[in-house]
Amino acid sequence: VTTSSRNLLLTPGPTPVPPAVAAAAAAPIPHHRSAEFRETFERVLASLRRVYRTDNDVVLYAASGTAAFESAYANLLSPGDRVLVATAGNFGDRWVKMAEAFGAEVEVLRFGWGTRPDPAAIAERVVGRADLAVAVVVHSETSTGSLLDLESVARLSSDRSAVLVVDAISSLGAAPLETDAWGLDVVVTGSQKALMCPPGLAFASVSARALERSRSARTPRFSLDWARAIDAQRKGQSPFTPPISLIAQLDVALAMIEADGLQARFARTRAMGAGLRAATRALGLELYSPDDPACSLVTAIAWPAAIDGEAIRRRLRSEHGITAAGGQGEAKGRIIRFGAFGAIEAQDLVAGIAALEIELVQAGHVVELGTGVGAFLRAYVEAESR
Amino acid sequence: VTTSSRNLLLTPGPTPVPPAVAAAAAAPIPHHRSAEFRETFERVLASLRRVYRTDNDVVLYAASGTAAFESAYANLLSPGDRVLVATAGNFGDRWVKMAEAFGAEVEVLRFGWGTRPDPAAIAERVVGRADLAVAVVVHSETSTGSLLDLESVARLSSDRSAVLVVDAISSLGAAPLETDAWGLDVVVTGSQKALMCPPGLAFASVSARALERSRSARTPRFSLDWARAIDAQRKGQSPFTPPISLIAQLDVALAMIEADGLQARFARTRAMGAGLRAATRALGLELYSPDDPACSLVTAIAWPAAIDGEAIRRRLRSEHGITAAGGQGEAKGRIIRFGAFGAIEAQDLVAGIAALEIELVQAGHVVELGTGVGAFLRAYVEAESR
Repeated sequence: VTTSSRNLLLTPGPTPVPPAVAAAAAAPIPHHRSAEFRETFERVLASLRRVYRTDNDVVLYAASGTAAFESAYANLLSPGDRVLVATAGNFGDRWVKMAEAFGAEVEVLRFGWGTRPDPAAIAERVVGRADLAVAVVVHSETSTGSLLDLESVARLSSDRSAVLVVDAISSLGAAPLETDAWGLDVVVTGSQKALMCPPGLAFASVSARALERSRSARTPRFSLDWARAIDAQRKGQSPFTPPISLIAQLDVALAMIEADGLQARFARTRAMGAGLRAATRALGLELYSPDDPACSLVTAIAWPAAIDGEAIRRRLRSEHGITAAGGQGEAKGRIIRFGAFGAIEAQDLVAGIAALEIELVQAGHVVELGTGVGAFLRAYVEAESR
Repeated sequence: VTTSSRNLLLTPGPTPVPPAVAAAAAAPIPHHRSAEFRETFERVLASLRRVYRTDNDVVLYAASGTAAFESAYANLLSPGDRVLVATAGNFGDRWVKMAEAFGAEVEVLRFGWGTRPDPAAIAERVVGRADLAVAVVVHSETSTGSLLDLESVARLSSDRSAVLVVDAISSLGAAPLETDAWGLDVVVTGSQKALMCPPGLAFASVSARALERSRSARTPRFSLDWARAIDAQRKGQSPFTPPISLIAQLDVALAMIEADGLQARFARTRAMGAGLRAATRALGLELYSPDDPACSLVTAIAWPAAIDGEAIRRRLRSEHGITAAGGQGEAKGRIIRFGAFGAIEAQDLVAGIAALEIELVQAGHVVELGTGVGAFLRAYVEAESR
């Protein structure tokens, strides 16, 4: 095998940046108070609302997804407020730690890593709870590949006083999410996932109820303050100097996403996920992510006990130019994760599976070369044609 | 005059992005946990420390300069702590508002807009004050063009218990600033000023004293937390997904800055400032920024009463492709501001002054064309040759 000079990201974020989006970053930057930038900014905000499926304000931050998520705690909480976090992995755990850092009384509802949380169990902890200020759920738990049935959570907990905050950092634009139809109060996402941009932008949609609650929340905040950002954005402005070049890239990426259509993108992700699960089985490997068509955004594969998986993952990078993600937290060293959204397409995953097969065989795993790729293609084409 | 299709930024931020820095944004992005990115990240952090003239940690944020500044309050304050803010313009006023948002007891030391703050007056309010938690000064007040004699402030207030926080957002890399030699505790800057990058990255250096104080500060914070970021950065990592493409750009820009040399850049800014002040006088206009060689980063020119300055500024943009800044706050509509740092060079300012002359004459201001440009060139060359 000759060493590849490629650099193919098959990670569930950052995802590959399409050439047209990359090129947009190199254009001369306009001043952020110019009419030219204002036009771009307003177009981006309008497009974001369509992708979010909302008429709510979507606040744009120069920030990591983590900081945009933090805006929910910073704007909604006063010291001692009660927060429920439903967690089934590393990112849910991060929101628990963050809630503790904000001085909240935190209730943690844990689900097993690699399992899908039970919507009824979440709703049960939310409905009829006047004492609960905020309920946090993770839509796509990127660390395990588990996708929450968010629609059911929202429906079953519609009779709540808590503000529902959704970590959709790696799901928005990759899986169905209806901010308004499902009554989601705060939905957070980032630029470097399904939105096909480099990291550095992140977003939070804010419902009327969330905005109302923020007016009495006493946590100090300034740059994350929703009211300040929304006031500026409604005038086509950003409250502070915005990341002009990243916004120019997002403008191009959102146009591509809208031209493609959200439904087409969701279907592609589901077909790629079906292919990855079929390849896993055909290669005699075990899924770590749930074996469920809904959980197609991230496919996590468990390494067999006899295989040094981290060595294979390093060789995918060094010999094949392919970056896949490893495990985090309790799954560290035990799994490999492939993303199937953003600009990642079937041919990229074919390259990834082919490289994985080569390395598995060299590591002594008994399988006929082509088995995984063949299974991927059959399942993918079948799912696509449905 | 034919209309220009140029887009020349002569604003004191964002400043123009050099082509090599622009091109770096379009390269494929590596994963942020890859060895390749780690190498870039560590190189950038080391270079930042050299430009900052410090051995302290310099925390890198995916953020506006405002949010990086906010990290000082978030990490240093507990509710009710006393903060002194010395302000002589719009940005100083922002740090007053922000301190209030953080529940601090705020003391405001005001200096006139367009004047240079008196270092002794600041030191007098800081020295021997055991009750003062934080003292805030603005190095370059971008809204007026006033540069603080920061060295004197630091020297005169060296016997202080307060943590000294410096807004160097538009000055670091454009004017002398010795973080360690002057004993500056926290120095904040942004990517889109002297560092020649698009906006979206911002930085805060943290002295041992500041870090120590942050351990007992009770303001809730997570993404802005210094200790978390420093722990990660010392391992060559970022605590959250970093803005990979912007960091790749910063890597190129910092190499350019270091190849040029800080002293050469400071000298160029001083020469360009001398040129702009000479042009102002030659054109029969009045300076709004201080008439002082130290105040060369931003030159603010007051519009004559008979001239509709905002109309001229619009025409600079529409007819000449040149963006200059207007006034903010109490100077709104009254001044025009030119930046003279970052990638802005003398030939850019020559273009700016030439366009300004054309528009002044068309608006009825009596001056012979070429007067301003000639004065600029003579003062610039004289200052350069010193």
